[in-house]
Amino acid sequence: MSAESPIITLTTDFGYQDYYVSALKANILSINRNVRLFDVSHSIPAQDIMAGAWVIKNSAFLYPKETIHLCVIDPGVGTERKPLLFETDGHYFIGPDNGLFSLITGERPWKAFEIANPDFMVSEISGTFHGRDIFAPAAAHLSKGMKPEAFGPAVDEIKTYRWATPIHDSQGIQGWVVHIDGYGNLITNIPESLLREASYSALKIYAGTTKLSEIHHTYQNVQTGEPVALFGSSGMLEISVNQGSAEELLNVHKGASVSVVFQK
Amino acid sequence: MSAESPIITLTTDFGYQDYYVSALKANILSINRNVRLFDVSHSIPAQDIMAGAWVIKNSAFLYPKETIHLCVIDPGVGTERKPLLFETDGHYFIGPDNGLFSLITGERPWKAFEIANPDFMVSEISGTFHGRDIFAPAAAHLSKGMKPEAFGPAVDEIKTYRWATPIHDSQGIQGWVVHIDGYGNLITNIPESLLREASYSALKIYAGTTKLSEIHHTYQNVQTGEPVALFGSSGMLEISVNQGSAEELLNVHKGASVSVVFQK
Amino acid sequence: MSAESPIITLTTDFGYQDYYVSALKANILSINRNVRLFDVSHSIPAQDIMAGAWVIKNSAFLYPKETIHLCVIDPGVGTERKPLLFETDGHYFIGPDNGLFSLITGERPWKAFEIANPDFMVSEISGTFHGRDIFAPAAAHLSKGMKPEAFGPAVDEIKTYRWATPIHDSQGIQGWVVHIDGYGNLITNIPESLLREASYSALKIYAGTTKLSEIHHTYQNVQTGEPVALFGSSGMLEISVNQGSAEELLNVHKGASVSVVFQK
Repeated sequence: MSAESPIITLTTDFGYQDYYVSALKANILSINRNVRLFDVSHSIPAQDIMAGAWVIKNSAFLYPKETIHLCVIDPGVGTERKPLLFETDGHYFIGPDNGLFSLITGERPWKAFEIANPDFMVSEISGTFHGRDIFAPAAAHLSKGMKPEAFGPAVDEIKTYRWATPIHDSQGIQGWVVHIDGYGNLITNIPESLLREASYSALKIYAGTTKLSEIHHTYQNVQTGEPVALFGSSGMLEISVNQGSAEELLNVHKGASVSVVFQK
Repeated sequence: MSAESPIITLTTDFGYQDYYVSALKANILSINRNVRLFDVSHSIPAQDIMAGAWVIKNSAFLYPKETIHLCVIDPGVGTERKPLLFETDGHYFIGPDNGLFSLITGERPWKAFEIANPDFMVSEISGTFHGRDIFAPAAAHLSKGMKPEAFGPAVDEIKTYRWATPIHDSQGIQGWVVHIDGYGNLITNIPESLLREASYSALKIYAGTTKLSEIHHTYQNVQTGEPVALFGSSGMLEISVNQGSAEELLNVHKGASVSVVFQK
Repeated sequence: MSAESPIITLTTDFGYQDYYVSALKANILSINRNVRLFDVSHSIPAQDIMAGAWVIKNSAFLYPKETIHLCVIDPGVGTERKPLLFETDGHYFIGPDNGLFSLITGERPWKAFEIANPDFMVSEISGTFHGRDIFAPAAAHLSKGMKPEAFGPAVDEIKTYRWATPIHDSQGIQGWVVHIDGYGNLITNIPESLLREASYSALKIYAGTTKLSEIHHTYQNVQTGEPVALFGSSGMLEISVNQGSAEELLNVHKGASVSVVFQK
């Protein structure tokens, strides 16, 4: 192992009480011991593709180039969704083609392959645990220098959910709450850049029954308990409540729509 | 450190809010900095030896040979249970002799030693934290190449719980639910091999008040909300409910018996 | 990377569902790939400075010298509290100057600096995530050999809470419950050494409405369900209940006072 040993990050919804995470690590190390593993999270809420997508989007590209991101939130295991391996912006991603990569594939060119070559899987594939049997071995073989195209046929389309992309025109933007963090902040899929590019003299933001007419810089710009719109550390429009939970106090939940209306 | 640096895995019920896990890692690194540490789980339910045994059984042997598995679920700390170090199938295990290794020592030959040599412990042993004071230092010294027999006298017997082994004859099998995973699946101690070896024309499986007469391949072979028996990713007979929790819906809990009756 | 690669430990209250922990790791690895990262805990209760202080105190100095401890429990992010880097006893600590280091700076000489040099931060500092933007990069640059004094002006005082230090005289000691562990044990800030140094023929310990007149060696010295005072694995006076939760059964909570009265 050296400083240049390949890096594999692990993001799953397996939790920590079962042997599932350990099986991933063990299978990777058995194929390539010369690899460094970093736990991102194994506490993604069960089967919550959107939460997984959010974590991946906000940290993957901060890692060094060539990092391999193994991402297993896989409610459809055993059904027809494809096992996927793709490269984008110098990073590699491995996981099910179920929308988990919705927040990163929209913005960047990518090159994707189906993981279909049985040489890079364990010999007996279970019906319920492709993380151990397909995805972890693929990550390990890729880390050993195997070419992406060796894993299977090229893939032209990666499944993307509509929550990945807000709708916008010169009148305004229609986005969604794609994530609610531990503090109850409502994080939307509306990037700061979209508002920077727009031309308007004033704006209104609608979330649930709440209307806001300003974008502030910090929570402290409003009174305790009052709602505030700002661009959070992820670069996305957030609706928060100063020292409170916006989810609870505004009664707005994940998947809810958030509208920005421009006044010229 | 190199690719061949020794690997130590950590499995405990310490949780993550206290300093206990960190103390293990620190003590290991202070004795042997040239070691790689992999967290298996620190969220084994408190003092749940069976859950710990399950995690160990299902992943330990997937790691490369020579891996050292440090396992501290230790409700009897400070009492007479022996601190144990043993080798089996090229892997090393360190932990209390309290049944934690029930699911692996039955199937394989092993060579065990009591950890008794004070040279490999911290100088002042607390009454309540042998993980830090005895087990972690033992793992670190073993990883430096110390021979197992240097740690103390040979041990002839490793404590094994009866839940480790189902009872069986030509009429059928009597097993137990040894684990319930995060989805509520009832995982028994009845391995697929035991059913493969049996000769029968039909079978019945009894769990609580539920009777099943077929072993399926996937959850989807039955209707949503219906119970199904199958061999899970661990190779054990599982009773599940398609898209539901078998524990809740069948009202069967850990430790409950599961019977398989053969019809000739 | 080598056995001598720098070690960075991570202690936060970020939890595991968000991308925050991953962003720390990614930013560190991007600045210094030749570093080893060890998760201490990311489950410190949200904004609980006292719990963080407790974890740091009880394990940091067990790590090898030169370890860098990155500690981000930071309820005041974006306000005036200083970003801090200090060295004590051969270890480095990085985190907010908000009392998080109360339990270690009292006992040892230290040399501290404010992290103020923008060369060692990311170029755009968010208002809400200094862990990613300031603290993690500082840890990474320090691990590359940057001198502490390069980060900013020297700091003369590190914020310390009164719960760090019990009050004592020849009559007795007045301390506080600074931590309650997963078993419900009440851990005080009264070190064994303070009692060893005192001269008395008998003592009384008061916690809530409970009075104890002896310090035992193990839980088993009292009946099941009975309270017991002992020195725990942290070297501090603890009030426990044999096979029960002292917090619940004695109705004493974090922050409560515990008095020791000497009888001459």
